[in-house]
Amino acid sequence: MKKRIAILPGDGIGPEVCEAATTVLNEIGTMFQHQFEFVYGDLGGIAIDKTGNPLPKETLTICKNSDAVLLGAVGGPKWDTLPGEQRPEKGLLGLRKELGLFANLRPVTIYDALADSSPLKDEVIQGVDLVIVRELTGGLYFGEPRERRGEGKEELAVDTLVYSRKEIERIVRKGFEFAEIRGGTLTSVDKANVLESSRLWREVVDEVAKEYPNISYSHMLVDNAAMQLVRNPRQFDVIVTENMFGDILSDEASMITGSLGMLPSASLSEDGPGLFEPIHGSAPDIAGKGIANPLATLSSVAMMLTYAFSMTEEADVLSAAINDVLEAGHRTADLTSDERAVLSTTEMTNQVIQAL
Amino acid sequence: MKKRIAILPGDGIGPEVCEAATTVLNEIGTMFQHQFEFVYGDLGGIAIDKTGNPLPKETLTICKNSDAVLLGAVGGPKWDTLPGEQRPEKGLLGLRKELGLFANLRPVTIYDALADSSPLKDEVIQGVDLVIVRELTGGLYFGEPRERRGEGKEELAVDTLVYSRKEIERIVRKGFEFAEIRGGTLTSVDKANVLESSRLWREVVDEVAKEYPNISYSHMLVDNAAMQLVRNPRQFDVIVTENMFGDILSDEASMITGSLGMLPSASLSEDGPGLFEPIHGSAPDIAGKGIANPLATLSSVAMMLTYAFSMTEEADVLSAAINDVLEAGHRTADLTSDERAVLSTTEMTNQVIQAL
Ligand SMILES: CC(C)[C@H](C(=O)O)[C@@H](O)C(=O)O
Ligand SMILES: CC(C)[C@H](C(=O)O)[C@@H](O)C(=O)O
Repeated sequence: MKKRIAILPGDGIGPEVCEAATTVLNEIGTMFQHQFEFVYGDLGGIAIDKTGNPLPKETLTICKNSDAVLLGAVGGPKWDTLPGEQRPEKGLLGLRKELGLFANLRPVTIYDALADSSPLKDEVIQGVDLVIVRELTGGLYFGEPRERRGEGKEELAVDTLVYSRKEIERIVRKGFEFAEIRGGTLTSVDKANVLESSRLWREVVDEVAKEYPNISYSHMLVDNAAMQLVRNPRQFDVIVTENMFGDILSDEASMITGSLGMLPSASLSEDGPGLFEPIHGSAPDIAGKGIANPLATLSSVAMMLTYAFSMTEEADVLSAAINDVLEAGHRTADLTSDERAVLSTTEMTNQVIQAL
Repeated sequence: MKKRIAILPGDGIGPEVCEAATTVLNEIGTMFQHQFEFVYGDLGGIAIDKTGNPLPKETLTICKNSDAVLLGAVGGPKWDTLPGEQRPEKGLLGLRKELGLFANLRPVTIYDALADSSPLKDEVIQGVDLVIVRELTGGLYFGEPRERRGEGKEELAVDTLVYSRKEIERIVRKGFEFAEIRGGTLTSVDKANVLESSRLWREVVDEVAKEYPNISYSHMLVDNAAMQLVRNPRQFDVIVTENMFGDILSDEASMITGSLGMLPSASLSEDGPGLFEPIHGSAPDIAGKGIANPLATLSSVAMMLTYAFSMTEEADVLSAAINDVLEAGHRTADLTSDERAVLSTTEMTNQVIQAL
């Protein structure tokens, strides 16, 4: 097969981990006789520096004309003092909206070889395997009005949490679909005892549930979910929730693994290209040193192979290779305190390629 | 001194833990020659059953005419199917608003004797001692409009996140004040890379900070805060944040202790009576059995002694007594798996009284 992939290296360690990704994709292409074509675009801080715009039109065009988008990371202290509209994150938010990436998938799994690095006790995290399905183009992130009003002490700032039945339906359906594929259960998280939008959310979940009579599902309040993720994360399989709650809970859930540098994400649209990115940030402190951990990006590539290209065999081979290098004891700097044993980004990438 | 305390036992185990509280307050009254007068009111489910209203006028009057309010817990499955306006929680939200309880204090401390029950590793939680200062009468909880609009697939549900400069100022000032009293640092949590209200929040924090040049403070994004509370909770001293973020983060933070049955809370107003309540819920499954853990309520009484009555010596004696009974190995059912060793609510209360 022939696939065109938009690569948006972005800022900080983004370019380094994206290079690891293209190297591995080329290898997989050779192994399975696919042709991966890479087209590069700027997003975030680097785009601001070059064009004044965190999401240049050209980048958007490149993405829309591709079969999938791989993103490194955006942001850094250099751009932190710019006004809101010109911040690197704005580029990412714009891309989500423009590509209609309404479904953010955040799998949280524990690599046995790394379980020790979790802040949670072994017996609490052993066997954790959940995925958070976060709504990504609605709610407080995009609702209008979002503005300042009035002056002095009476000055107000307003954001709007708004969801339509349609928006809720399509993300909830994704939640049920994943629960079905995984043969698992669905937990819908809301704040229905306080929010009007959560009450609609809950109604829609109960309706959509009728289409999935074999999936057992339940509702959980967001404050309770934040507790349960720490108390007993194993109780969860698929979690579906709105944008802001998903932002908070998925980061919390990532941290229970203790290996942020390992976790991928996918953001999917109705029928256009999906976006795949590691969940770690741009890590400006180690950028350019060649020591970034490429494994979260390579896991994101595995998600791309699965969700964008339906290349499940290829994805499985890549995921197995990542697991193998960890089991063999290979570590980048973020994964070990033993300095002598540390691999560079390139060395780790080569280990994965050998393990393929 | 003579103090009048409104007691709102509420639902589930509420009446049992409130009885423990009045018993202990009477004892402290005798010891320190204070006179505590108790006036009882209904709130939540029991108020719905009796009057159809989760917050009857009479209850509100009782609270307003008191020096402090002690709340047991509200809610239970019996009332879960009622429409939003008639739910037990609505009584609590109404009380917060009517009494102007804008500052919710949620201390999170680890009792050495119970550290084992935390899902987090010992080295992560040892010495955790933080307090979350949550804004309690603004934001998404009360903002208007909050409504449904339109029909069919296009039906919308809307909530409004709104804060005035004044509202932010007074809660942020509370945050700095607590940091000052504790000789600690302040972390302000927001989502300034996305929300207009968070950008105003951040502005106000930077302004108010000028009045506290000796307090070191920082800003943290809410998703990062949700991670950091799991990764390294010891880094926090005082956290100040808006209503919804505070709801989520304070419950998450409570769970890292592993002993939800131990944690108190206080909700303070500008100059009226404060409200004190355990953070655990109404626990309908064990209600009426006489086995509920009264210690979170007794800790809430200690907060009442401190914040409502400035009786710091009395509060210290009570807190020390709670610590002593735990060190002596006394446990209610929620704190141990050893059934033979379990104390009832009354037995535990008596242990505390002896330890006073
Ligand atoms: C950078 C920021 C706007 C973004 C978000 O809040 O969605 C990030 O935290 C994420 O989760 O991808
Ligand atoms: C019962 C509910 C409305 C309440 C809240 O969300 O504030 C509770 O979770 C709390 O934190 O006191």
